[in-house]
Amino acid sequence: MALIVQKFGGTSVGTIEKIAAVAKRVIERQQEGNRMIVVLSAMAGETDRLIGMANSIQRIPDLREMDMLISSGEQVSVALFAMAVKAASYDAVSLLGDQVAIRTDQKHTRARIGSIGAERIQAYLDQGKIVTVAGFQGVTDQGDITTLGRGGSDTTAVALAAALKADACEIFTDVEGVFTTDPGVCSKARKIDYISYDEMLELASLGAKVLDIRAVSMAKRFKVPVHVRSTFTNTIGTWVVDEEKIMESMLVSGITYSKKEARITVKKVPDQPGTAAKIFLPISDAGILVDMIIQNTHDGGLTDMTFTVPKSDYDRAMDILNKVAVEIQAEEVTGDQEIAKVSIVGVGMRNHSGIASTMFQIMSKEGINMMMVSTSEIKVSVVIAEKYTELAVRALHDAFALDKNNMPQEVD
Amino acid sequence: MALIVQKFGGTSVGTIEKIAAVAKRVIERQQEGNRMIVVLSAMAGETDRLIGMANSIQRIPDLREMDMLISSGEQVSVALFAMAVKAASYDAVSLLGDQVAIRTDQKHTRARIGSIGAERIQAYLDQGKIVTVAGFQGVTDQGDITTLGRGGSDTTAVALAAALKADACEIFTDVEGVFTTDPGVCSKARKIDYISYDEMLELASLGAKVLDIRAVSMAKRFKVPVHVRSTFTNTIGTWVVDEEKIMESMLVSGITYSKKEARITVKKVPDQPGTAAKIFLPISDAGILVDMIIQNTHDGGLTDMTFTVPKSDYDRAMDILNKVAVEIQAEEVTGDQEIAKVSIVGVGMRNHSGIASTMFQIMSKEGINMMMVSTSEIKVSVVIAEKYTELAVRALHDAFALDKNNMPQEVD
Repeated sequence: MALIVQKFGGTSVGTIEKIAAVAKRVIERQQEGNRMIVVLSAMAGETDRLIGMANSIQRIPDLREMDMLISSGEQVSVALFAMAVKAASYDAVSLLGDQVAIRTDQKHTRARIGSIGAERIQAYLDQGKIVTVAGFQGVTDQGDITTLGRGGSDTTAVALAAALKADACEIFTDVEGVFTTDPGVCSKARKIDYISYDEMLELASLGAKVLDIRAVSMAKRFKVPVHVRSTFTNTIGTWVVDEEKIMESMLVSGITYSKKEARITVKKVPDQPGTAAKIFLPISDAGILVDMIIQNTHDGGLTDMTFTVPKSDYDRAMDILNKVAVEIQAEEVTGDQEIAKVSIVGVGMRNHSGIASTMFQIMSKEGINMMMVSTSEIKVSVVIAEKYTELAVRALHDAFALDKNNMPQEVD
Repeated sequence: MALIVQKFGGTSVGTIEKIAAVAKRVIERQQEGNRMIVVLSAMAGETDRLIGMANSIQRIPDLREMDMLISSGEQVSVALFAMAVKAASYDAVSLLGDQVAIRTDQKHTRARIGSIGAERIQAYLDQGKIVTVAGFQGVTDQGDITTLGRGGSDTTAVALAAALKADACEIFTDVEGVFTTDPGVCSKARKIDYISYDEMLELASLGAKVLDIRAVSMAKRFKVPVHVRSTFTNTIGTWVVDEEKIMESMLVSGITYSKKEARITVKKVPDQPGTAAKIFLPISDAGILVDMIIQNTHDGGLTDMTFTVPKSDYDRAMDILNKVAVEIQAEEVTGDQEIAKVSIVGVGMRNHSGIASTMFQIMSKEGINMMMVSTSEIKVSVVIAEKYTELAVRALHDAFALDKNNMPQEVD
């Protein structure tokens, strides 16, 4: 008998009817001869409702109490789900994070899982029960409730799959799987059958919302086969697996884009030790995440520092940097919010040179200026003017023939 | 420093604004030099909302899952309350039943408290925190969440007061205290300053909704002084205390009535051993609670069995009894739903005869026929036609001079 962990998000359990539908689906899977663990999020809208109440009571809500509050959402989901299974004359039992013994650190609202107790779940599975576990939550050694941050239910599911050595972890979502790019932008976007953990990590960190990045990271560490699939159909989705299990890797697996960043340049900074720290320390102290950083050296011992920050932090970052600029005698600080980051991802890049240059050729052919470039072992990202985003995505998708599931075409 | 347990019900914490108001009130009490434990119910309407969802998923919801579900309501209240205290720049911490270690038996939805851990609360109190505890809930030795049944938050408060040897347990409600009778029926109804546990027990079991009967029973057992008072004012309410602490007991402390029962008579039953069992066993097997029972013997070895059941169970009871009647060769089964039970309660009755006869005289004077009579050491109940309820209550209130807080007047 296979052991399968399934995770359903808030929209999948958003109403009584949907919970009943999920229960039916899980029961069918069990009746095919599987042992079932089901991780659920709070019903759609519930977490936001609770956070809204918290915010109207305390401007910056206490984090321990916030976890106490919002963890109640998943508690409701799992109880109703277990009832739905029982209403269909099958057996189920619900468990909270502390009942499973999902131990975390004490970082409330963004806790990390330290260990998971398998005994209680195992015992219930042995009794033939469908075990449903509240996602997103854990408990500290002191017995305080913690939550894992947004997307935390994915992490709960993968962690349970790892702890119980499940045969698969199925993440149900409102799309059919991981696509070569956003189907809303490129009509030729194709569902990917297999993708490696590393590729999925890059895609998730580049803004593909289908799977939480911490979940992917944990799946990679414990080699948990993850199956991203649709709540609404029975078709096979995308398997996120170990690289070695994918027979033939694509050079490029997917193309992502993000319009959520802004670009800032601190111009003509004295090029001497300590300058970068003076710029980036106050930024990181303010909790602002810097993504790409590029340094261009001028003549005369001066340099330009260009980097990207989230658009939502742009105004704060500019305020800080205008003060810093005076202090370090920079010429000026300029910014641009109308940019986009387009990235190509693929483990095939490791063994093939020329992927980046192919990308640059296509951008050039389409007349799109690249403002910044950043590369990793399996990724190339370029920053371009926001208005060219869709054009760039479609051109790259065609050039790398992602709709065809084979080798890239030549670009002249 | 005194230790005070305060309990606020669902309407007192029904909105964000009300929660903030309760927090303010508790903080003031703490600042007067008290250590504070606050027990809260779920926000008004929340428990019913959750039960509604459960009922629409499973016709008869699984009791363990029901407890998992509805205990989330109090979790939300205590988290928001702790935030409200912190928003006012004081310190608070919320605890669930299992975090306190409120251990119960395994009778889901109507569990009984076995023990309470005081250590964690004590430690938080020592740190100057206001400790808020989710009412209504506990945990089994196996780690399953249980609830204590409707009114369970009262029990939580009294149990905590007992375990931590609190100086007082204050139960906040939407009325000013315990009244000599329903002020809606008798305009002369007077708030009682002190009432004994036994009297309160009778009043609670007779339908006075101000305090849960199990809470009173526990308060009596552990001699916890309970103060029933208004959420909306600062006036002194009613102290429920040990009989010995009340200087001078009233002969009659209060008058209650209930329109929730119906009367059934099984006529001309053979008066022989085992007949009563044949009548009442199927009734109790059906989960129907029988209150008063009266047996009248006829000539010729026949007897009438008259008793009361909740109106809501009347139809079911009649169905059962019509079948039983055939079996035991009773003449017929008659019923009357238009009845009321009016009761007088007072520990003073113990040492004074004639209270019952005074009551009967008054009923006779008002021309009210008594269908059934039942007495206990500190209570006399009569069943009368429903239409005379208010008349009887007012006449008894006058006759025993309950508005005057002194001895009863003579009745001619």
